[in-house]
Amino acid sequence: MQSPVALIPQLAAHLVAAGGKRIRPLLTLAAARLCGHQGQRHVALAACVEFIHTATLLHDDVVDESALRRGAPSANAVFGNKPSVLVGDFLFARAFQIMVADGSLRVLDILATASATIAEGEVLQLVTQNDTATTEEQYLQVIEGKTAALFAAATEVGAVVAERPQAEAEALREYGRTLGVAFQLVDDALDYSASQAALGKTVGDDFREGKITLPVLLAFNSAAEEEQVFWRRVLEERDQADGDLEKAIALMQSRGTLQATIERAREYGARALDALSIFPDGEERRALAGIVEFCIARAR
Amino acid sequence: MQSPVALIPQLAAHLVAAGGKRIRPLLTLAAARLCGHQGQRHVALAACVEFIHTATLLHDDVVDESALRRGAPSANAVFGNKPSVLVGDFLFARAFQIMVADGSLRVLDILATASATIAEGEVLQLVTQNDTATTEEQYLQVIEGKTAALFAAATEVGAVVAERPQAEAEALREYGRTLGVAFQLVDDALDYSASQAALGKTVGDDFREGKITLPVLLAFNSAAEEEQVFWRRVLEERDQADGDLEKAIALMQSRGTLQATIERAREYGARALDALSIFPDGEERRALAGIVEFCIARAR
Repeated sequence: MQSPVALIPQLAAHLVAAGGKRIRPLLTLAAARLCGHQGQRHVALAACVEFIHTATLLHDDVVDESALRRGAPSANAVFGNKPSVLVGDFLFARAFQIMVADGSLRVLDILATASATIAEGEVLQLVTQNDTATTEEQYLQVIEGKTAALFAAATEVGAVVAERPQAEAEALREYGRTLGVAFQLVDDALDYSASQAALGKTVGDDFREGKITLPVLLAFNSAAEEEQVFWRRVLEERDQADGDLEKAIALMQSRGTLQATIERAREYGARALDALSIFPDGEERRALAGIVEFCIARAR
Repeated sequence: MQSPVALIPQLAAHLVAAGGKRIRPLLTLAAARLCGHQGQRHVALAACVEFIHTATLLHDDVVDESALRRGAPSANAVFGNKPSVLVGDFLFARAFQIMVADGSLRVLDILATASATIAEGEVLQLVTQNDTATTEEQYLQVIEGKTAALFAAATEVGAVVAERPQAEAEALREYGRTLGVAFQLVDDALDYSASQAALGKTVGDDFREGKITLPVLLAFNSAAEEEQVFWRRVLEERDQADGDLEKAIALMQSRGTLQATIERAREYGARALDALSIFPDGEERRALAGIVEFCIARAR
């Protein structure tokens, strides 16, 4: 993250200090170990994965006008939108420089493609925002893009550095993809249920922006007519008053849609565990299985 | 620029329709031809160069809150800031996908490094904005980063695809770098002198943002005390009223700083022509020399 332009390491240090789960680089490290990688290449590539993720977070926070990230004021809130956009670009470019130094065109391919897919998912999310006609299929397309693509790439890269057969790379990719979907489903439920401290951001962010996530989508689709009027007002027109968030949460609870979202996450989590079954049992496989448990357990 | 997410090709089509000089991809094509490249690789790589440039323009227009780009409403003005940031990210990622398909780690290195350098230059520009203590050295560092780095990379890539000796790649890189500095110097003078139609953007954009470009920097450094008070008010405090832009232009004209900026551009242009001297005279070299003339002639 170093640069002669001091604001770049300053803004980057703010992000590092804010912490975060670092789950994506962890996936690269764990997948490489599961595949028996003995060298050190996975360390730099795990950093690339986190840099790409950080770049997307910086841009997301500008796009979403977020004030908090990981429980601390977001970079755009502290440094402004402009440095956030540009330092995001810098970290993205730096990730590619590190990959070039590593020298694998296949790794470059995986992470360049993931980066394009993330952007597509984010744009699709914008398009579906404030649109209660969004389908479950579109919602899944959004989270496959904005979240699962990088999880899948992070684990696949681990197999690729270990130079393992294609079947193992594909199994780890599927593990990462399904884990990513589960992770995002839990995140989308947490936005309506977690305390701000546990989530590291404000409760109801998605609601205020009118993001059509699964808990809302299921609630809208099972809503009585007067409830649909409510959902349209708050999500499509973004005409929100005090008490509307609480009413939305009560409606979701009465329809059981937060629970249904977590249940869906469990199903994807089970698929992630299935994908690991081609690997022999052992400490490394158990570590990756543990990440699935961790992601689901966040919902408690 | 294609994507199943329709807004991406829509926004991209807006950019294509707006035109532009396409000078950067032209440099890649011309440099490859000068080096005797017989294949077609330079075409896709020229597209990568333009994609990276377009991504930076999309982000710049968000950062600068520009309303016009190339004489037409800017993408952020038409589609909003959010899609502009995200489609910029998409085009940047797509450029790397195309480079991976081309398969040259050296090309990837050149353009990843240029991308990081562009971001550094843009951040440094933000830092020096509204600061009349900015030095000529810092100003040059900004334009070497935000403009010259991609010009240099664009021409170097042309030599690399032709698999020419290092001396030719370095000569073309130096040609691109010095041409890029000349180009930006002219641009910075034009911001105070061109008609909106000729420039494709509003006159005085840099002034309104308090960007410290060479014409302003030279005027401030040669200003009498009461003129310095004026410059500090309009550039540092951004306290601007009707007539201030005209007064600034009059001050620059009385000190000859617009002319001095163009003169500096000519010097860099001469260095660009010098760098071409290791190549035999011929149609291709004359074409690259012609680009230098074109860039300087924009100032007339």
